[in-house]
Amino acid sequence: MKTLVAYSGGLDTTWVTTLLSSQGEEVTALMINSGAFSDEEIASAKDRAFQGDAKHFDCIDVSKEYYDKTVKYMIFGNMLKNNTYPMSVSSERIIQAITVANYAKANKFDKIAHGCTGAGNDQVRFEMVFDILCPEIKVQALVRETNIQRADEIAFLKEKGIKMNFDKAKYSINKGLWGTSIGGRETLNSAQPLPEEAYPTHCTKSEESVITLEFCKGELCCVNGKKFDNKVDAIREVEKLAGAYAIGRDMHIGDTIIGIKGRVGFEAAAPMVIIKAHHALEKHVLTKWQIYWKDNISQWYGNRLHEGMLLEPEMRDMEKFLESTQQKVSGKVFVALRPYTFFINGIESEHDLMTSKFGVYGEDNKAFTADDIAGFTKVVGVQSKIWYAVNNEKYL
Amino acid sequence: MKTLVAYSGGLDTTWVTTLLSSQGEEVTALMINSGAFSDEEIASAKDRAFQGDAKHFDCIDVSKEYYDKTVKYMIFGNMLKNNTYPMSVSSERIIQAITVANYAKANKFDKIAHGCTGAGNDQVRFEMVFDILCPEIKVQALVRETNIQRADEIAFLKEKGIKMNFDKAKYSINKGLWGTSIGGRETLNSAQPLPEEAYPTHCTKSEESVITLEFCKGELCCVNGKKFDNKVDAIREVEKLAGAYAIGRDMHIGDTIIGIKGRVGFEAAAPMVIIKAHHALEKHVLTKWQIYWKDNISQWYGNRLHEGMLLEPEMRDMEKFLESTQQKVSGKVFVALRPYTFFINGIESEHDLMTSKFGVYGEDNKAFTADDIAGFTKVVGVQSKIWYAVNNEKYL
Amino acid sequence: MKTLVAYSGGLDTTWVTTLLSSQGEEVTALMINSGAFSDEEIASAKDRAFQGDAKHFDCIDVSKEYYDKTVKYMIFGNMLKNNTYPMSVSSERIIQAITVANYAKANKFDKIAHGCTGAGNDQVRFEMVFDILCPEIKVQALVRETNIQRADEIAFLKEKGIKMNFDKAKYSINKGLWGTSIGGRETLNSAQPLPEEAYPTHCTKSEESVITLEFCKGELCCVNGKKFDNKVDAIREVEKLAGAYAIGRDMHIGDTIIGIKGRVGFEAAAPMVIIKAHHALEKHVLTKWQIYWKDNISQWYGNRLHEGMLLEPEMRDMEKFLESTQQKVSGKVFVALRPYTFFINGIESEHDLMTSKFGVYGEDNKAFTADDIAGFTKVVGVQSKIWYAVNNEKYL
Amino acid sequence: MKTLVAYSGGLDTTWVTTLLSSQGEEVTALMINSGAFSDEEIASAKDRAFQGDAKHFDCIDVSKEYYDKTVKYMIFGNMLKNNTYPMSVSSERIIQAITVANYAKANKFDKIAHGCTGAGNDQVRFEMVFDILCPEIKVQALVRETNIQRADEIAFLKEKGIKMNFDKAKYSINKGLWGTSIGGRETLNSAQPLPEEAYPTHCTKSEESVITLEFCKGELCCVNGKKFDNKVDAIREVEKLAGAYAIGRDMHIGDTIIGIKGRVGFEAAAPMVIIKAHHALEKHVLTKWQIYWKDNISQWYGNRLHEGMLLEPEMRDMEKFLESTQQKVSGKVFVALRPYTFFINGIESEHDLMTSKFGVYGEDNKAFTADDIAGFTKVVGVQSKIWYAVNNEKYL
Repeated sequence: MKTLVAYSGGLDTTWVTTLLSSQGEEVTALMINSGAFSDEEIASAKDRAFQGDAKHFDCIDVSKEYYDKTVKYMIFGNMLKNNTYPMSVSSERIIQAITVANYAKANKFDKIAHGCTGAGNDQVRFEMVFDILCPEIKVQALVRETNIQRADEIAFLKEKGIKMNFDKAKYSINKGLWGTSIGGRETLNSAQPLPEEAYPTHCTKSEESVITLEFCKGELCCVNGKKFDNKVDAIREVEKLAGAYAIGRDMHIGDTIIGIKGRVGFEAAAPMVIIKAHHALEKHVLTKWQIYWKDNISQWYGNRLHEGMLLEPEMRDMEKFLESTQQKVSGKVFVALRPYTFFINGIESEHDLMTSKFGVYGEDNKAFTADDIAGFTKVVGVQSKIWYAVNNEKYL
Repeated sequence: MKTLVAYSGGLDTTWVTTLLSSQGEEVTALMINSGAFSDEEIASAKDRAFQGDAKHFDCIDVSKEYYDKTVKYMIFGNMLKNNTYPMSVSSERIIQAITVANYAKANKFDKIAHGCTGAGNDQVRFEMVFDILCPEIKVQALVRETNIQRADEIAFLKEKGIKMNFDKAKYSINKGLWGTSIGGRETLNSAQPLPEEAYPTHCTKSEESVITLEFCKGELCCVNGKKFDNKVDAIREVEKLAGAYAIGRDMHIGDTIIGIKGRVGFEAAAPMVIIKAHHALEKHVLTKWQIYWKDNISQWYGNRLHEGMLLEPEMRDMEKFLESTQQKVSGKVFVALRPYTFFINGIESEHDLMTSKFGVYGEDNKAFTADDIAGFTKVVGVQSKIWYAVNNEKYL
Repeated sequence: MKTLVAYSGGLDTTWVTTLLSSQGEEVTALMINSGAFSDEEIASAKDRAFQGDAKHFDCIDVSKEYYDKTVKYMIFGNMLKNNTYPMSVSSERIIQAITVANYAKANKFDKIAHGCTGAGNDQVRFEMVFDILCPEIKVQALVRETNIQRADEIAFLKEKGIKMNFDKAKYSINKGLWGTSIGGRETLNSAQPLPEEAYPTHCTKSEESVITLEFCKGELCCVNGKKFDNKVDAIREVEKLAGAYAIGRDMHIGDTIIGIKGRVGFEAAAPMVIIKAHHALEKHVLTKWQIYWKDNISQWYGNRLHEGMLLEPEMRDMEKFLESTQQKVSGKVFVALRPYTFFINGIESEHDLMTSKFGVYGEDNKAFTADDIAGFTKVVGVQSKIWYAVNNEKYL
Repeated sequence: MKTLVAYSGGLDTTWVTTLLSSQGEEVTALMINSGAFSDEEIASAKDRAFQGDAKHFDCIDVSKEYYDKTVKYMIFGNMLKNNTYPMSVSSERIIQAITVANYAKANKFDKIAHGCTGAGNDQVRFEMVFDILCPEIKVQALVRETNIQRADEIAFLKEKGIKMNFDKAKYSINKGLWGTSIGGRETLNSAQPLPEEAYPTHCTKSEESVITLEFCKGELCCVNGKKFDNKVDAIREVEKLAGAYAIGRDMHIGDTIIGIKGRVGFEAAAPMVIIKAHHALEKHVLTKWQIYWKDNISQWYGNRLHEGMLLEPEMRDMEKFLESTQQKVSGKVFVALRPYTFFINGIESEHDLMTSKFGVYGEDNKAFTADDIAGFTKVVGVQSKIWYAVNNEKYL
């Protein structure tokens, strides 16, 4: 049997790789790098896969696809799940799953095996994508199926001679291009925050610094005047600058795909700064109803993306909408970085609707006269006027 | 002519009062206190009205009505205009206008005069309300009508012997129960933040402190264990605690009622802390789709309130919706206050959907088995599966 | 074992009742009448249950609850699934399921058995409700579980001496208070309509007649001047009048709960006439934005009701919204009935916003002058004006 | 002065043309044909313009632009104002206004004069467009400005020797490509329908006939097998076929731009048949959430188009969304035409989601097992289950 293991190099997928290989399957360990793995991590994971007797190892860098297909739209839509969480993990998983499915299909695998447990969202994201894109390929959730415990996995791997760090970290960290999630003791309940030690990044700067982000049609193209053709690198640049202030820490509490509430901490300096900067620019260049509808559509798009529904056709329609709204979202945003927080100082854009020859709020304007406003006021209120008169109603 | 002046005690309305009195009209100066005026300010304004030869002066405290009719719903809906601004001024004006209209009607005034200029939103808010609620009463916008300049107003008032501080403040400050807006040189353009000196409140504490806000059916009822029957006082208590950290500063950029973009700074410690705390509690006790729909309806309600449309009938329907959503929004929220920022530590509620005997995310749960999730995954993805198969489509 | 069978008197549930009784379970056959069963049908079903050795039989009339909890809101919201189908079956099933669950819980049954097959929506509606309302009670889907075939059911029942009509109807008819669904050969594919013979009701009148429906706060209270305290009877009265014209036939094509498209014919004279009449009245008495928001919320409410989600908390919030919108929806609607179709002639209501002293469209009106409209026009277009100028854009 | 008269050939615009010419202005009478005028009508109008001493006459056929920029999207969105009215007049006016503005700008006119009265929506549509697209050109609403009466217009024109039919029609008819509106005595009040005589088109066929409409990516491309490259002609073909049955009569009651309710009759055979056919096809080929979101966006787009807001930027974004949804909306729809009504018999499409190898509703399907559905049911209901348990709530 030709088996593809969706491989991360961690305990569960190393166990899956080793077990299936030991059962005589021809295993390919496929690692999907959506932007978080270093070369060292990949080399070490590759080594481990071969220790586990995998026949082949492959690592695909999908950071560009990840950006193009999800991160870009999350920026366009200023998307924060429940107005809080940049959907770091959820957006990554779905791109990983799609890449695995396409790889399995193109290379005619008989089976895909993954290491998701029966407890979370990832199993749904993975298996739904596989069932949609390659329903002809068998899928095996070995950890869930066997309900194997951590200690037994370790025992098996040690027996097989696999060398890796088997210590359990106090906090479970999930680092990605678009933020890092943090689970642990406190996140199992509702009342406590994470302690400082739980966060991988700590504040190392105390002096405010002001950075300039430049957007071109909604995409971050320059940071402090430096142009980035690869938008993934632009994000990393912001992460470097803002991470030094430990910006973007918060707790996400929300509905999992399977209906249960979950709580998780995160740090996401670049996502928070980029989204808020992008949002500030939009407030200057978009019309009232563009903003209104963008908010509605982005809320939906974000929720669905979070739930693994990226493949749904309505998402394509919404992407067209979002792209269209970004045609004038070009300009600079000035952001003051401070320890643990930041402030949008202002923006500069040739599409700024505030800098008009017709009207400046609070000043004499040339778009209309005081009489025009009086007329506007009369007409805009007329339906209520009729309603109160016809129904003889009072208020207050 | 029996004239009611919508009176604030400021330069414009003092001029209106004095001018109309000097022209022989029987002027009543009506001050509406929605929670921001101190007794001293009221006494001084009253004195000035009589200096200006007003026949009568009245001051109505509508802080309770202001809370009951708008602030309460802004909390229920976590309403921030453009996800930023707590609509301090806009929500106040409309309650003031309605109170003036009802007073004028009940007391059979011939005319209402107000001091709004031709440049902003307030003229629309005032005149629309008057036209809806008391269309039979004449309305006069004397400042807009005459286009009088500040210097001429001062000259006239000095000539009439009015004693008041005629100095122009560097920043125009508009203090209210639900936040303080700040206009000035920087807010006329897009690129600059306000300087520290522009903010009335400065940071006086550096040590973090944790406060407990308790909500009962969505309303803030206790602060640090102290029960408040008068919700206005609860808000003031939070303002006192959080204001000491200069929390809640930001810039609002948005669409005015009359279609032009405007920019204004604000500080709003209590609104920001209360709304974010309320939101955190809701994330634990509301269902996914309650949150989704609340967000949609609140966005609309907030926008319309901001534009002076509180009297519109659909707003009553939405209030019923919002009230219904709050039935389980009871519990405590723990908030860490820090200089210029704050952090929601966690919540405690008997309605917390996280603390269920059926399911705990990430742990063994009793609501369903791994097989149930596999079945769910199959069914939930089936329409996409059919779509991709029927249309022979690829993604990525 | 004390078992409750959700019993309709049809083949499947008679088989379930008889089989479980034969296995020694103490079976109560519970029939839920949501308004469609006649006394004869109930008597015959009862007789059959006892033939099948049920220990107890009960029949609960829930037509009032059915109306109060779903039909009323479907009228308030003018709800037609996909703008076509009055959701006859879906709304009934959910009330039946809830009644069964409450009955089982109150009477401490050990098990609920139902006759749903594994092919449709009803199994989801039933089992979801049971799992939510009485998770402690075992649920058995005997037909689905055994995958028993029609012929085998009949053989078993004949052997047990059950007397009933075992002929298979050419079309499967599902008659309810709020419409009758019709499945059969043509509905399995997309291209053909149902033939005349498939419809239970045929056109027996050719002359137009005009009827008057009177609504009180959104509810149908009088038909042709006759007052109905029981709204269920008012619906039946309209059904009698409009059914004679074979009004309300159409095909529903839509998404089932389980993601597959389905097609079914229906006839629904009363629902179509009542909904369109109610809608016509609303167009006269509701404001523009009440209509807009009602449409949005009703679309959601209808979809979710159709999918069996009536128990979800957001539905309660939406009911409050809908009720609030109906406060002025009182008045008469005149409907011309014709063979296969009908026409709304007009309405009469004291809340009609067209009959105002302020403004009559197309006539001289007293709400505003031509100058007011010119001013309104200027202001209402100003943001676009600025946008086109700032961006130097053309259109067409 | 170089003046452009937005000219229809009717009484008001003939008067405007003649009056301004008589005052020495260099008048160009510009007729915009959005698809309703015959060659005879144009010739006669041209003749009349020159009788009135216009210097120039021009007639632009914008039927293609009208289709491309509005009718197409109204079909994509199945748009009916208040679920009733195909927005015949409103969509036409806005394209006419834009054409006039662009013509005036390109040809450097000093002034645009139009014949709108002060009573309706058209003045807003015209003047808003002019103010947005050519704010530098003076606009004159001569009829509104002078408040001239019909009799005085006629007297003036007779004096000037203009030959035209000065009789007032009993019903005011406004014929366009996308429907004909009808105003008259009955439409001024709420209770009465229009009499048969008011409708321009009468039923001339009694036998049912079945026609086939074929759509390609949402656009009507073939009628009864005949291919139409010009979609305007396809619409006319349907009008011819369906008009013979007097299909598509109804009354529109709705909110005018200026806040007052208005009532108008209409006949719109082609729009109603095409929209309902298109809608039927969509129910087979779009996913559940595509349909949901299309409905939402189309409702907004339609309302805004109706109110003359076509130039607003959010409309462009929505057009991109709508276009994207139409990629699979290709196939045939079979429509049975009958006197005064019609019935969608069925559809045929290679994108039909009902004809899938995976699942057929009500039959054995291959997408999932009964166990999968049981699992789905458990998971999909889990949040409600938790909610009812945590809150100890009952329903019914």
